[in-house]
Amino acid sequence: MKYFARIAMCLAALMMIAAPALAEKKVRWKMAMTWGSTLTPLSEAGPWLAEMVGAMTGGNFEIRWEGADKHKAALGILDMVKGGQYEIGHSAAYYWKGKDVTTTFFTTAPFDMNVNEQYAWYYYGGGLELMQKVFSKHGVYSFPGGNTGVQMGGWFRKEITNLEDLKGLKMRIPGLAGEVFAKLGVSVTNIPPGELSTALERGTIDALEWVGPGMDIRMGFYKIAPFYYAGWHEPASELQYMVNKKAYDDLSPEYQAVLKTAMQAVAIRMTAANFDDNARAWEKMLAEYPNIKVMKFPEPVLQAMKKATDEVLAGYAAENAEFKEVYESRKAYREVARPWTKISEQNYLEAYDTVTK
Amino acid sequence: MKYFARIAMCLAALMMIAAPALAEKKVRWKMAMTWGSTLTPLSEAGPWLAEMVGAMTGGNFEIRWEGADKHKAALGILDMVKGGQYEIGHSAAYYWKGKDVTTTFFTTAPFDMNVNEQYAWYYYGGGLELMQKVFSKHGVYSFPGGNTGVQMGGWFRKEITNLEDLKGLKMRIPGLAGEVFAKLGVSVTNIPPGELSTALERGTIDALEWVGPGMDIRMGFYKIAPFYYAGWHEPASELQYMVNKKAYDDLSPEYQAVLKTAMQAVAIRMTAANFDDNARAWEKMLAEYPNIKVMKFPEPVLQAMKKATDEVLAGYAAENAEFKEVYESRKAYREVARPWTKISEQNYLEAYDTVTK
Repeated sequence: MKYFARIAMCLAALMMIAAPALAEKKVRWKMAMTWGSTLTPLSEAGPWLAEMVGAMTGGNFEIRWEGADKHKAALGILDMVKGGQYEIGHSAAYYWKGKDVTTTFFTTAPFDMNVNEQYAWYYYGGGLELMQKVFSKHGVYSFPGGNTGVQMGGWFRKEITNLEDLKGLKMRIPGLAGEVFAKLGVSVTNIPPGELSTALERGTIDALEWVGPGMDIRMGFYKIAPFYYAGWHEPASELQYMVNKKAYDDLSPEYQAVLKTAMQAVAIRMTAANFDDNARAWEKMLAEYPNIKVMKFPEPVLQAMKKATDEVLAGYAAENAEFKEVYESRKAYREVARPWTKISEQNYLEAYDTVTK
Repeated sequence: MKYFARIAMCLAALMMIAAPALAEKKVRWKMAMTWGSTLTPLSEAGPWLAEMVGAMTGGNFEIRWEGADKHKAALGILDMVKGGQYEIGHSAAYYWKGKDVTTTFFTTAPFDMNVNEQYAWYYYGGGLELMQKVFSKHGVYSFPGGNTGVQMGGWFRKEITNLEDLKGLKMRIPGLAGEVFAKLGVSVTNIPPGELSTALERGTIDALEWVGPGMDIRMGFYKIAPFYYAGWHEPASELQYMVNKKAYDDLSPEYQAVLKTAMQAVAIRMTAANFDDNARAWEKMLAEYPNIKVMKFPEPVLQAMKKATDEVLAGYAAENAEFKEVYESRKAYREVARPWTKISEQNYLEAYDTVTK
């Protein structure tokens, strides 16, 4: 009996002392997304991250995610993560433009880098460091969370043949692109996603910008506004993970690494998912929706957009040193990156056209 | 004293029983790369993976990597990983063309998908499953390992003005592109990387293809062959991780997830690293090497290359069912993907040119 008692004591000691020392403590996090829980592919940011982190830790680091349909605060993610209601969020940095206009650069900007250029900027052009600097003021760590690729220029009731056609047009287009259109005489409004179709139907707006064919077709805008314009204003919209600073700092170094690595792995899959979703929707659209007219803005309209873009960005840069710093970093990197894109990617696509025409 | 003795016994029991039960057993792997250990950015596949996996497991899953300068078997990685000398390798799938021509498709093919299209094919077009199927026969699991982007078409002593200029030209160009050039009358050879400059100097070859400006400039080819042609034959060369099946299957599910997630995270960084390296080298090249002449193949030459490519691929497809399966999967996906690339990425790049000319 004495022998067994000793063993039992040892086991008790083991449970009290050894377990916390040798195993990670259980971590349970909550995640909030800007997207509804079925708004694929964006809503996959939740389940994919949860699945990867869970698999790497044997279920010990658990992430439960909620879409906007549950938490009802699509554009409140930054505040909720900062406040600790959720340890982590998935959204897009330019939704915080009202708080801090510099955040927009961590999504995209009109006439700026494409997706491969921008990931190179994040990793090798100082982008990640600038993102942490900007978001540190807002109480969160911020990480890239996948890219939508080039977004389409939007749906219009009528063809845009010249700059005059933009004057007085009522359009839903948020962010910097909205400011650019406003400079060109467009009456710009923002309307929550759920009300867009009704607004278009009732004539509250004449045009709107949403994402790309994958997500646009499902919204049915083409029924009322069939002129579908190619993109210029969001050439590579990066999604965003935000993490509450204290929650992150409280993780073990191992779990911090698990989370960071998983966010990078989600990003590459999310970018591929958006590409695939758009490519399949585009094919279907061309085949099954003959009333949709695919358009490109006329050259003088594009040039006016570029001029207005430069004015909007220079205006913010003149009054906001941090905006200026990120603006100049992006501009400098784009000037290194684009000549390479031209001789590699762009020239290759042209060569392909030459041999398949 | 009795009390302390009991504590000591408990601690001994704890060390013998508890440690193996609660913690993962220590894993030590060796990794072999096709690249020399300083051939950045490709050689970063070793240190980055080791660092991520180590950080996520508190150093418990250790990967020691060796470059070709150490193991002296740059093109023996598949055999060494299959045989278990190394648990993991980093290379490019088309180096196994001699064993199994279908492997080439998991790198790239002439006039095929670009990098974003190809990642979408891997994740959403059945590419990953086909890769496992093809490499299963060769005793390894295979995973994407980062992309070089569009590779340049090579360095030529003399300008190529028409198809006649290709006849009898001695060129180092491996893989499917070599077969294409052979059909056009080029005398194709393969020469190990270390002997390329000497071969060019001595006239053993008149032209050669290597990678892109980042890695090419450091090799000094421009001194002898200053005509530098834009790419057509490797539009998106994917690098490859190979893992020994038994070593992978012996890992705990948690460590399998750690490894897989880390390989994905390395891939996104590697793609960005290659882009950045090429972009910076391209800028430097244009500024500091005025004797390099950047060229594009004339349209009739490109068209002949495309015709020869189709013949080479159709020839293999006619005699090899697995080749045909992957060929058709890629072709079908490219036909869905390219129209979207054209209206999104390609059209955006053209719009940018319009407003900045």
